[in-house]
Amino acid sequence: MATEANDPQGNHAQALSLAARTNNIKAYIVMPEISALPKIAATRDYGAEIIFSGSTSVEREAVTSKVIADTGARLVPPYDHPDIVLGQGTLGLELQDQVLELQGATGKGLDAIVAPCGGGGMLSGVALSAEGTGIRVFGSEPEFSGADDGMRGYYSGQRVEKVSSLTIADGLRTPVGEIPWGIIYERKLVSGMYNVTEDEIKAALRLVYERMKLVVEPSSAVPLAVALYNEDFRSMVEKEAGDEGWDLGIVFSGGNVDLSSLGKLFL
Amino acid sequence: MATEANDPQGNHAQALSLAARTNNIKAYIVMPEISALPKIAATRDYGAEIIFSGSTSVEREAVTSKVIADTGARLVPPYDHPDIVLGQGTLGLELQDQVLELQGATGKGLDAIVAPCGGGGMLSGVALSAEGTGIRVFGSEPEFSGADDGMRGYYSGQRVEKVSSLTIADGLRTPVGEIPWGIIYERKLVSGMYNVTEDEIKAALRLVYERMKLVVEPSSAVPLAVALYNEDFRSMVEKEAGDEGWDLGIVFSGGNVDLSSLGKLFL
Repeated sequence: MATEANDPQGNHAQALSLAARTNNIKAYIVMPEISALPKIAATRDYGAEIIFSGSTSVEREAVTSKVIADTGARLVPPYDHPDIVLGQGTLGLELQDQVLELQGATGKGLDAIVAPCGGGGMLSGVALSAEGTGIRVFGSEPEFSGADDGMRGYYSGQRVEKVSSLTIADGLRTPVGEIPWGIIYERKLVSGMYNVTEDEIKAALRLVYERMKLVVEPSSAVPLAVALYNEDFRSMVEKEAGDEGWDLGIVFSGGNVDLSSLGKLFL
Repeated sequence: MATEANDPQGNHAQALSLAARTNNIKAYIVMPEISALPKIAATRDYGAEIIFSGSTSVEREAVTSKVIADTGARLVPPYDHPDIVLGQGTLGLELQDQVLELQGATGKGLDAIVAPCGGGGMLSGVALSAEGTGIRVFGSEPEFSGADDGMRGYYSGQRVEKVSSLTIADGLRTPVGEIPWGIIYERKLVSGMYNVTEDEIKAALRLVYERMKLVVEPSSAVPLAVALYNEDFRSMVEKEAGDEGWDLGIVFSGGNVDLSSLGKLFL
């Protein structure tokens, strides 16, 4: 098993590593040499063999091809594949079930879900999980230096294929993949896309740390930032939800934080 | 309601503030001016009126007396009071219940619990919660510059009344109070006390952030550090627990972290 990562959060690498060990399968993970140490350490701790590459996609793909040729491993891409979309979408099913359980007998479930959008695998999976339920699914992205490619593509009707952003939400720097795009845009299973500023991400992140006591990475705080601070989102909800309001599900995904640099975000 | 805080974590201030608001009671919290901003903000957000004092106990007590005289409020001390001990001890009951629930029908419950020891209110409460159950309760403290007053007192037979430590586990810098001491030492409801170094606390803290994804303050990581790194504790468990080992409960208490200084611990 090998992955040519376009997986800036490292969630995919860690999940693959653990899943492979659990099933007694050998995993090879190709990672850029410049990857953050905690991601390397966690991926290795979960049992995978890590093979380093240069940081460009060309270099990564070359190393990955060699690993596959040498070992017979099968490529497991991080988001642009139907199986990955469906697997990530199971979080949407779990979220819906857990909310119904919390609400008890009189519960009507969620009205909407906001999920982060990087490569779009998870967002499109969550959208599929809500298909036919009446639950609306929205995507959320950082605005900074063009990381809101999904939103720009969604409203212009043309998928944006290249992103080069240094947003602090480093898990969401990737462009939306072709398979997710088909679900998000062409099938319109995502009802809207919203973006937030770096300061809004930091404010939401601080709230999650200080009040919810959860370790999340900046990318994880983007959906909450949309719900709290995006005025377009607020207007839309006020219009659509009426006086009753909505029960809104917020997806937090990814806690790969480099502790020594975390503090710098809050200086 | 007023508290003259010897409450370096700010847990007591925040809990009182929230409890008072929930019960529609006015709360006045006396805090040193030099308190960390997140503690002040959280305490205020939960609804209390904050009154600042100087940082010495004499200054705090003077302001507290004036608040009580002016308002008729009742003092709620942070640990050295039977009601507080019993209230904090309810976490021991919850922990025992939750473990039994997790273990299912064949479960035998916990064998032991390790709790942090600052003023000793929570440790003595947890010890009371386990009285007569066969569950052993252990205290844990930072070793640095004498913060292990509880351990030194426990093994010398004499309560240590003054502590002046700058351990990173700032919630555990207080000496053990008289009421907790009676439970911990005189009634011997605590079976042993252990200490850990600053580096051991940091290593446990890093593990909690990186793998458990929980925001805790350094004080919270002290019991886990004892379980992972204290050789005396390890020897004792190996001797007492035999081949079967123990199911050990670890208490995490307090997540009042100043995010801008957190990163400095991990440089």
